[in-house]
Amino acid sequence: MELVTLADIRTAAAHIAGVAVRTPLMPVPWADGDLWIKPEGLQPVGSFKLRGAYNTVASLPEEKRRAGIIAHSSGNHAQAAAFAARAFGVPCVVVMPDVSVPMKIEATRALGAEVILVPPPERDDLTTKLAAERGLNHVPPFDHPDVIAGQGTIGLEIVADLPDVDVVLVPVGGGGLASGVATAIKALRPAAAVIGVEPAVAGDAADSLASGELRKWPVEQTYGTVADGLRTGLSERTFAHLTERLDGIVTVSEDEILDVMGRLVRGSRVLVEPSGAVAAAAYLHHGSELPPGRTVAVISGGNADPKLLAGLWS
Amino acid sequence: MELVTLADIRTAAAHIAGVAVRTPLMPVPWADGDLWIKPEGLQPVGSFKLRGAYNTVASLPEEKRRAGIIAHSSGNHAQAAAFAARAFGVPCVVVMPDVSVPMKIEATRALGAEVILVPPPERDDLTTKLAAERGLNHVPPFDHPDVIAGQGTIGLEIVADLPDVDVVLVPVGGGGLASGVATAIKALRPAAAVIGVEPAVAGDAADSLASGELRKWPVEQTYGTVADGLRTGLSERTFAHLTERLDGIVTVSEDEILDVMGRLVRGSRVLVEPSGAVAAAAYLHHGSELPPGRTVAVISGGNADPKLLAGLWS
Repeated sequence: MELVTLADIRTAAAHIAGVAVRTPLMPVPWADGDLWIKPEGLQPVGSFKLRGAYNTVASLPEEKRRAGIIAHSSGNHAQAAAFAARAFGVPCVVVMPDVSVPMKIEATRALGAEVILVPPPERDDLTTKLAAERGLNHVPPFDHPDVIAGQGTIGLEIVADLPDVDVVLVPVGGGGLASGVATAIKALRPAAAVIGVEPAVAGDAADSLASGELRKWPVEQTYGTVADGLRTGLSERTFAHLTERLDGIVTVSEDEILDVMGRLVRGSRVLVEPSGAVAAAAYLHHGSELPPGRTVAVISGGNADPKLLAGLWS
Repeated sequence: MELVTLADIRTAAAHIAGVAVRTPLMPVPWADGDLWIKPEGLQPVGSFKLRGAYNTVASLPEEKRRAGIIAHSSGNHAQAAAFAARAFGVPCVVVMPDVSVPMKIEATRALGAEVILVPPPERDDLTTKLAAERGLNHVPPFDHPDVIAGQGTIGLEIVADLPDVDVVLVPVGGGGLASGVATAIKALRPAAAVIGVEPAVAGDAADSLASGELRKWPVEQTYGTVADGLRTGLSERTFAHLTERLDGIVTVSEDEILDVMGRLVRGSRVLVEPSGAVAAAAYLHHGSELPPGRTVAVISGGNADPKLLAGLWS
């Protein structure tokens, strides 16, 4: 399989300039050692997903793009796709599970998307059917070279801001973010280690990489994590990228995730959703499993349930 | 009186590079019109104060600096001074009112400062006395050219990120931030309007600018605002800068401040303290009093009382 290249990521960076926020690296003075976080919750849709979705829409030939796009998502990708479509002034359909959080449905509609609610098992078929009927371009949440290249722009920015970075910690769900970031970092600074992080109860990527074959874990298990963005398994494409380019993978517990969400909001005033906290949780709770040195943890998003966060806060 | 220049601000920018976070402009898609916010709560001490304090310490001749610094503050300036001193490895004394929030005292101590608690009326005399006895350099919270120049780096960054900005909204307490930002913006983009914002119940700057003379309001009145960073009055120095360089001033109500704190945290995932919310409150509640066009609101800090914010959130 052909993997995404640094050149693809540079093209993506040109596409997203002025649309995605150029997030800073924030030092974390209350952590022992040399830790920086990259707060992707500052994106206008609250997560890194904007980078990949926007790059994918921007990469479509103009005539195809004009027909519009379709995406399926229960979470951050829905808003990212809707935002990208609106920026280009093209139609957007988002197929969402009928069990989605009402706030997320509303946010997606507020960005101008047509939201179609379906029972979860019907999601894929309906997306394929609507794409064919209406001539819509499917923008998948992670399994696409342009999505991976878009997420990889985070890696470019890390190396630009901290050229002597030693370790980059990145959450792994479907693996699009980790594939893109690892591609950029290993190309620009091969000496740095890129380590994936996932919840132990959704540790399918660690299992896959250790065994050398793509392993799917049952949904009943992976849905046990509070990190709703990391319940998905890898695709063949992201598995190939991570096998080639990731230096290791660390898993964190549910308690560690919640602990670090609270510490980030209290200590650094950064709102973080559970999936966004795993990389910092690896640094703060699993330091002995990590290479030493100047470390960046990618905080992938900030769309946390307000009730959950308010409870961790005070 | 000699005013701070663009050259002073460029020098400050060189000093703070790599220490203060280069905060991004975040678009605010849920606001009508063209609004961006600059979230200074991302600074490692949670507010813009790091820029001015660090620039002041960096500007001291090395031999003087080695003796250490002294600051008085009940709030954000305390942590900024302590952080700056620690970065240079020099001693820091912070004189704090004995009524200060325990969390803020602890945070200042955690940054290595010697904290001395005094009854509020004794603050100035003790600071002067200790500075003389120990040979410490006084780093004031706003009434100093190097402090103003440091805060002005925010203006440089705004013009770099949004060269065609039309309006910049900036909180006014002691006036150091507004003096610096107005200096940078009017030098780099004279067509842009720089508008100060303060709470109506601490509207001494609006009163001073309207009357053409520096007016002090009684503490019993200015302490009526929830925006604890904006209770201070201007100095002769900041009054001179604002008279020359500010295009106007708008006041906001207490309810408007609280409303916008909640909207920023819910809509943009940005933690903001009351003082930090006034500029966005002017945009969202007093649009008819402002010039039209592409507007940046400076969100000066994020050190909010967790209980206050948790209540506004859900």
